[in-house]
Amino acid sequence: MTQALSELFELLRIPSVSADPAHNQDMKKAAGWLEAKLRSIGFNVEVVPTPNHPIVYAEKRLSDIAPTVLFYGHYDVQPPDPLVLWHTPPFEPTLRDGKIYARGSSDDKGQIFAHIAAVESLGDQLPVNVKFVIEGEEEVGFGNLVPWLEGNLARLKADVLVVSDSSMLAPGIPAITYALRGIALLEVRLQGSARDLHSGTYGGGAPNPIHAAATMIAKLKSQDGKIQIPGFYDKVRPLSEQERKLYHKLPFDAAEFAAAIGASAMPGEAGYSLLERIWARPSLDVNGIWGGYQGEGSKTVIPAKAGFKLSMRLVPDQDPEAIYALTKAYLEHILPAGYSLEILPHGVGKPVVTELDSAPMQAASRALEKAWGRKPVFNRMGGSVPIVADFQQLMNIPIVMMGFGLDDDNLHSPNEKFDLINFEKAIESSRNFLLEFAKTLR
Amino acid sequence: MTQALSELFELLRIPSVSADPAHNQDMKKAAGWLEAKLRSIGFNVEVVPTPNHPIVYAEKRLSDIAPTVLFYGHYDVQPPDPLVLWHTPPFEPTLRDGKIYARGSSDDKGQIFAHIAAVESLGDQLPVNVKFVIEGEEEVGFGNLVPWLEGNLARLKADVLVVSDSSMLAPGIPAITYALRGIALLEVRLQGSARDLHSGTYGGGAPNPIHAAATMIAKLKSQDGKIQIPGFYDKVRPLSEQERKLYHKLPFDAAEFAAAIGASAMPGEAGYSLLERIWARPSLDVNGIWGGYQGEGSKTVIPAKAGFKLSMRLVPDQDPEAIYALTKAYLEHILPAGYSLEILPHGVGKPVVTELDSAPMQAASRALEKAWGRKPVFNRMGGSVPIVADFQQLMNIPIVMMGFGLDDDNLHSPNEKFDLINFEKAIESSRNFLLEFAKTLR
Repeated sequence: MTQALSELFELLRIPSVSADPAHNQDMKKAAGWLEAKLRSIGFNVEVVPTPNHPIVYAEKRLSDIAPTVLFYGHYDVQPPDPLVLWHTPPFEPTLRDGKIYARGSSDDKGQIFAHIAAVESLGDQLPVNVKFVIEGEEEVGFGNLVPWLEGNLARLKADVLVVSDSSMLAPGIPAITYALRGIALLEVRLQGSARDLHSGTYGGGAPNPIHAAATMIAKLKSQDGKIQIPGFYDKVRPLSEQERKLYHKLPFDAAEFAAAIGASAMPGEAGYSLLERIWARPSLDVNGIWGGYQGEGSKTVIPAKAGFKLSMRLVPDQDPEAIYALTKAYLEHILPAGYSLEILPHGVGKPVVTELDSAPMQAASRALEKAWGRKPVFNRMGGSVPIVADFQQLMNIPIVMMGFGLDDDNLHSPNEKFDLINFEKAIESSRNFLLEFAKTLR
Repeated sequence: MTQALSELFELLRIPSVSADPAHNQDMKKAAGWLEAKLRSIGFNVEVVPTPNHPIVYAEKRLSDIAPTVLFYGHYDVQPPDPLVLWHTPPFEPTLRDGKIYARGSSDDKGQIFAHIAAVESLGDQLPVNVKFVIEGEEEVGFGNLVPWLEGNLARLKADVLVVSDSSMLAPGIPAITYALRGIALLEVRLQGSARDLHSGTYGGGAPNPIHAAATMIAKLKSQDGKIQIPGFYDKVRPLSEQERKLYHKLPFDAAEFAAAIGASAMPGEAGYSLLERIWARPSLDVNGIWGGYQGEGSKTVIPAKAGFKLSMRLVPDQDPEAIYALTKAYLEHILPAGYSLEILPHGVGKPVVTELDSAPMQAASRALEKAWGRKPVFNRMGGSVPIVADFQQLMNIPIVMMGFGLDDDNLHSPNEKFDLINFEKAIESSRNFLLEFAKTLR
């Protein structure tokens, strides 16, 4: 076992479950472990207390003129439940069939530690200033990181942010994620009469908020999957020809993708491939609906209330706040007569897109190619990673998202794993990147 | 206190709650009380055991040539919970402000006992054969009555069925209910993917059964309230000019009706008044809907499953089984691609309509007019009373539904009451009816 792997195992043995207050001491222990490790390889380290879990901030400074790389990651992990489904205990890392089994192995201890190991491996050859921000609240969203970032922008100053908390396209196919979708969430509450009514006595003459909800939802998208909110697409940056070509070349099989989730069709916006739709086009989904009787059998009720939860995935250059306002106005416009409407905001997150052609992207591409023996694919992620949007907005620097996980890593599930080869290649990729990036700014 | 009232109080003191097995002995006691009472006034009585609660069947036979009146009612009552909301105990009948407060006073002990008291009051003047079927399962639907009826059609033979288990139009305004709506109930279950999906990763490219449910529900009715199932209206008997005129003359205020349920609008089928819509036109309502996340806040899920419960109120001459089949075919037709559909039947009930001009109706009208000093209104009920449809189908005799309850009697709620004047007028009305009806067949 290499020294890097043995040290990763040490970190994985600390059950740093941020969601469970019973693990608060373990959170401190994990932060302390990182502090000691980073200090041992020449970093100045501060463990920043917050109302919840500490932030580990570390700097290794070469000179004022050297370029600076900032790494972001997190040391907290998801709860391991249900424990009975684990083949080996979640906090006793085990190497089996070339895979590191442990909670946090892929998400995100293995990935952030790879960067630490890369810096260490360079020793005196390290050509850049390096900073680390490693938080303990990624899995819980207590919200203590952003205010600290805002208050420490001068210290954090860097030429590129590197985030490794995502996946490769497939085993052996490295990926650089160059865009994330944003999000706008809201809840719609409808009321007709003041109380539930008997459908015999009132059927045919009373408002039914389930029907109101259904007709409103039906008006949110056209049959060909176009979102009907006026102005919704106005700021959407069209896919470039370069991107469409890139996507078509990817080893992505839509039929396989559908089969993996047991779906007989993958409906969506007309005129775009499946990959374009889930990566680069905005989407709208009702995430929950309720109203009336949901139990066994039947109940002849006309309910007073019904409601639904709505989320939209947004792409550059849509502004989530503006989309929320447009959506609210449209819902008010399509509300049928006879109902009261209440709309509750449930939060927004900005989309992120980074330049495909930037120097750091090119450096990352070369770094990955050297490590893996093939060029990385440039992909987008359909999901939202609000902290990346926050970094982009606060620091306005290039961002490189290069992840080393795989889709079958069981993030947030029992038997989380990280392929040993991916851990080793992650160290190599990071090391290559530090060297390549230094060249770009010379 | 009159003898009739004092005897009704005896019956009301028996807590004959059919839904609660703890009251099984009370059910027997109530049936026994009716047996003794009916026997004491010259009836042959049989208490028919069933797997659940007994049926009380009684006959008083004058001659083979005298016409026969069959009364239907029920001696079981709803559970009295929540007890704390009762001002006086539910099974200690109390006369207060001219009202009889007790569980079962209006529904249905007070109403069925009024007929017994009417027969008794006529003594030797009783001009007709009289039969009573008084069941103990009306509030629970254990289903033991219909098989017994089917097996005893010869004994039950009668010239008219009288049912008093409904309401007057308003205080002092007697009503004869000449039609009831039927019903067809079903449940729709939809599935897209095999498991719940993350809306970031899959949004824009995965089936969402909530959207499928919403678009299907939106296609069930047009904007002007017409049900869109092909063939749905084919068998609907149009309202006669006589009926429309009758309805327009009724003291019914749509704005008051809406205000009573706190509704700002009473949407429904275009071209019909509110009263016509809830009494004489079929209706369709989703009674429940579910899918995805219903808790606090938001969850970025695309659910695998969603569903809804649907009921239709039907009018003569719609056949509930045929309507169920049409509905199923239409739902299958409008199912979007990419979803599996399961439809579960939840039962049907036939609509009932009786002739407005029949001799028994005219006799009932005169009887009520004599008792109340004003002609009764002929109304319909939007709800379904399956046992009346069963009687109609099995016996094919005229049916007179004359109810003496009021809308504020708190049926199925705390503080159920029956106005003393209504009890007294019910006896008088029933007595008048027996005399009037005897004349019609001479």
